[in-house]
Amino acid sequence: MEKLCPFCGDQAAESSFALEGGILAIYNISPLLPGHSLIVPEHHAGSLFDLSEDEISRFFAFARKVTHFLMQVYNAEAFDWSLQEGEIAGQSVEHLHLHIIPRTSGDLPDGVEWYSLLYGQQSQGLDNPERVRLNTWEHAGATLQLRQKWEEYNKVIPG
Amino acid sequence: MEKLCPFCGDQAAESSFALEGGILAIYNISPLLPGHSLIVPEHHAGSLFDLSEDEISRFFAFARKVTHFLMQVYNAEAFDWSLQEGEIAGQSVEHLHLHIIPRTSGDLPDGVEWYSLLYGQQSQGLDNPERVRLNTWEHAGATLQLRQKWEEYNKVIPG
Repeated sequence: MEKLCPFCGDQAAESSFALEGGILAIYNISPLLPGHSLIVPEHHAGSLFDLSEDEISRFFAFARKVTHFLMQVYNAEAFDWSLQEGEIAGQSVEHLHLHIIPRTSGDLPDGVEWYSLLYGQQSQGLDNPERVRLNTWEHAGATLQLRQKWEEYNKVIPG
Repeated sequence: MEKLCPFCGDQAAESSFALEGGILAIYNISPLLPGHSLIVPEHHAGSLFDLSEDEISRFFAFARKVTHFLMQVYNAEAFDWSLQEGEIAGQSVEHLHLHIIPRTSGDLPDGVEWYSLLYGQQSQGLDNPERVRLNTWEHAGATLQLRQKWEEYNKVIPG
């Protein structure tokens, strides 16, 4: 499992836009809405129960900080957090990850819910060619932009 | 707002089944699935951004512990966490709350997603008489059972 895990190894760190205390923020390769990102421990953790108490603190404090940052960057008024553990709960990658989805008024048509979009995408599997997906250059571009903004953000907002 | 908040005051503490470090666990008055519970700060906090770093740690460490407990009680194999902040993200009560939904195989018919059920319920508003809702006695009964089990759980699992 670990060998095939898309959130493990150098590639995950390289594709992240922020890293603090062993926790990564990665722009989703298939963003449902602008800013849709993932919070992921740098070391492989299949489950929330694999984290130490200290890691739990760092994971969610970092997630909150990244959420604040993304809401600024994407002019969002609201956000959704979703964490799914176990295949029947909709978890598609067996490495703990929290979805952060910044929300703005009118971002989805009436009656369309981000969860259905996410779940629909996930049930198609990662390799389904029909899945909406940034290509490598698009993802790298978005990541580089966010990295620069994260640096600026950290100059203004301490810690 | 604070006066009308269903998660504030003595009533919230009385209707909770667990309390640690100022954070409550409350069995949802409208459970979507068996075990559907809420994690709520005891003091009024409209937003995740109102919590101190220390409260963030306690909130999510407690949420994880309650999730572990609920999975045991309800024989769950998986779980969903959902946190919605801001009206357009689906937040119906302006007091920070995390949904914990234990999941078991076959708990929902194919094609039915808990998020749609939750969102559908929320968009009907808290006082919609058609909303699936435990009555006071049913909720008190579920809460008392969980309180006893939580006591037993804490005898076995320290801290």
